[in-house]
Amino acid sequence: MHSSNVRLLRHMLNNLTPADIADQIESAPPKVRRVLWDLVDGELEGEVIGELNEELRGEILSEMESHEVASLTEGLDPDDVADILQQLPDQVIPEVLQAMTSQDRLRVERVLTYAEDTAGGLMNTDTITVRPDLTIDVVLRYLRRHEEIPEVTDCIFVVNREDTFLGTLPLTKLLTASPNITVREIMDTEVEAIAADMPDSDVALLFEKHDWVSAPVIGDDRKLLGRITIDDVVDVIMEDAAHSLLGLAGLSDEEETFASVKRTAPRRAIWLGLNLMTAILASAVINIFEATIDKVVALAILMPIVASMGGVAGSQTLTVVIRGMALGQISRNNMRWLLSKEFAVGALNGMLWALIMGAVAALWFNDPTIAVIIAAAMLINLLAAAIAGAGLPILLKACRIDPALAGSVALTTVTDVVGFLSFLGLATLFYG
Amino acid sequence: MHSSNVRLLRHMLNNLTPADIADQIESAPPKVRRVLWDLVDGELEGEVIGELNEELRGEILSEMESHEVASLTEGLDPDDVADILQQLPDQVIPEVLQAMTSQDRLRVERVLTYAEDTAGGLMNTDTITVRPDLTIDVVLRYLRRHEEIPEVTDCIFVVNREDTFLGTLPLTKLLTASPNITVREIMDTEVEAIAADMPDSDVALLFEKHDWVSAPVIGDDRKLLGRITIDDVVDVIMEDAAHSLLGLAGLSDEEETFASVKRTAPRRAIWLGLNLMTAILASAVINIFEATIDKVVALAILMPIVASMGGVAGSQTLTVVIRGMALGQISRNNMRWLLSKEFAVGALNGMLWALIMGAVAALWFNDPTIAVIIAAAMLINLLAAAIAGAGLPILLKACRIDPALAGSVALTTVTDVVGFLSFLGLATLFYG
Repeated sequence: MHSSNVRLLRHMLNNLTPADIADQIESAPPKVRRVLWDLVDGELEGEVIGELNEELRGEILSEMESHEVASLTEGLDPDDVADILQQLPDQVIPEVLQAMTSQDRLRVERVLTYAEDTAGGLMNTDTITVRPDLTIDVVLRYLRRHEEIPEVTDCIFVVNREDTFLGTLPLTKLLTASPNITVREIMDTEVEAIAADMPDSDVALLFEKHDWVSAPVIGDDRKLLGRITIDDVVDVIMEDAAHSLLGLAGLSDEEETFASVKRTAPRRAIWLGLNLMTAILASAVINIFEATIDKVVALAILMPIVASMGGVAGSQTLTVVIRGMALGQISRNNMRWLLSKEFAVGALNGMLWALIMGAVAALWFNDPTIAVIIAAAMLINLLAAAIAGAGLPILLKACRIDPALAGSVALTTVTDVVGFLSFLGLATLFYG
Repeated sequence: MHSSNVRLLRHMLNNLTPADIADQIESAPPKVRRVLWDLVDGELEGEVIGELNEELRGEILSEMESHEVASLTEGLDPDDVADILQQLPDQVIPEVLQAMTSQDRLRVERVLTYAEDTAGGLMNTDTITVRPDLTIDVVLRYLRRHEEIPEVTDCIFVVNREDTFLGTLPLTKLLTASPNITVREIMDTEVEAIAADMPDSDVALLFEKHDWVSAPVIGDDRKLLGRITIDDVVDVIMEDAAHSLLGLAGLSDEEETFASVKRTAPRRAIWLGLNLMTAILASAVINIFEATIDKVVALAILMPIVASMGGVAGSQTLTVVIRGMALGQISRNNMRWLLSKEFAVGALNGMLWALIMGAVAALWFNDPTIAVIIAAAMLINLLAAAIAGAGLPILLKACRIDPALAGSVALTTVTDVVGFLSFLGLATLFYG
């Protein structure tokens, strides 16, 4: 590129918000990304890298020296720094921590003690705390002494001498309260503080339910450790949604639309290989009935319909159940009801389309026997699809296997095998 | 139920947050829902109904009188009231509006002029505004005169005499600023106000990018109309995510895990019927090659594998592209790159699994010809899957058809037809 073009590009790029810069980098082809990243101003690098997806971030970080990483993290929130550090090789982390200022190091180390996908890993330590016996006037004067109040602060936290969490004081209350009353009189004690080891998806559900902007995080001893803010929760919500969506197609959470061929191909190959094995299994089932197909070639023509309808019906049930699980709506109490409902839906739609398909087959091949066979097989497969679609994710979850990822391949195996087995098995009974 | 049990249940239920009550109602079987709803305290009904999904809400509203609906909406945010009204039959809306206080009516009518899925439909009118020439001290005294400040207020808005939006004043700045300076000196003028007709998914992307808690909404004349808050944006994000996830399985956004059989079965039946048509189309393709299958029965055994692999590979590409679209990452600039990347991934994985499957087929049927045929057909189908998976959503979107909903059925049609056509067509060439 011409140097004047580069100057213009650099100027335009660094005039964007860090999130927009990250967006530009992510949606550029792999080769252009490097160029764009090199044009980002040093002082923006930390924020931009925090907005990039994990994979790209890892790639860039892997080429940096410890002290470069340390200077990049300056001014970032401790939870974002922790996210960055967790992507580095284990032996590099202490080097980067060593290169930080001691105050930053302490904050980051506190967040690092919790797993990335828990409330503790999500929290920031930039809380503002006051004691309950202060008057509002004193609190206001205390706040005015701050250079600045952290972003996304909608309330300050009330703690006692031991740092035990007592309640929250929303800024909106602070601004309307009479200056002479004490914090204790107007603080909100009904807010449930979040335990540091709560999974981040549960944190997201709480935020969504209570319309929180920020919430306190406490340890086992009820001591205040930090706070979680809605902007980080929105990221969790989007990640969880991506997980369900991508998982059903056998893609990892980190599958990016604009990843290089070199990265994309091997990841998808594994899933295709797994699917090939289940497809071969289904073919082995067909193979059992070779003689019957040889006799009645119409069976070969119709058999994919039975498998396909089972697959579609099953994936509808599977999607609904996986979504219900992600929203925390499915419990022991309603599981039995859910299974029987999906079974009933499968039975009704099975009967409807079995009748129609039976009629089509009778007309097509001028053979009432094949109509009965395909109708019966379709009903059987739609019932199997309902049971598998509702039962498999529950079963997989109980075995601690991620249903969003394993569910669809397990389901297709069931609907293919049951579909071919019932259709060709019945055909062998009738024609054999 | 025993009356003492009912009392206990009522007590427990009404001690929950409105969102939790709505959750309990939603995840209960249909018959229990009515009972639970009837137990909800009158003063909580409005908030609970706001948290229920659209379908359930519509059901409950349809059985209420206009004046009951009007009293239910008391104290709700205008955007929530507008959502409720938009679900009522057209002739009932004026009746309900008439039954409201005139102040509430005016507010709701303002929101009602915008479509539900735009910034205007999402906004609330509970903004607090100040003029730029006031001092911070005056602003603080003005705020203190408020009984209460609306929830999720992180900033107040600065407007001129004509109500033109000038900038925002974050509460955190207000609390740390010196009392003598004017609003103009510390207000934030870089915030881009949201146009009232912006689609709500774009609003969500903006919030996510800028980590906003609330943002101003303006009309064409730059006059301040209201504000959007993060809690409503989180709902939009969750709805959009549900749309992509459910759409790919042919389910509507309102598909609830716990809907009754009566409601679920007909909705899913349509999708199954559509799929049946495409499956019959695929069978018609097989039918063309009846004579070849009759000659070589191994073809019937192997052909589902080719179709299945194409379907899986295509759905991976489709999912990634639909997600990229939802995140606003796909544009004219990178579309060509994306298509060629997916094609390259399809080619690589096509070659890999074609070779392996060819080897399996050669060993299985002891026939090198069938190995060549299935390998070639698989490669062709994986390439077709890549093109269809990436191209179809872009094409559908250009035709203003929702790719999340129509994409998967269109894709399966392509991969089934191409799969059977290439495999059996090649077989006819070799064996015919």
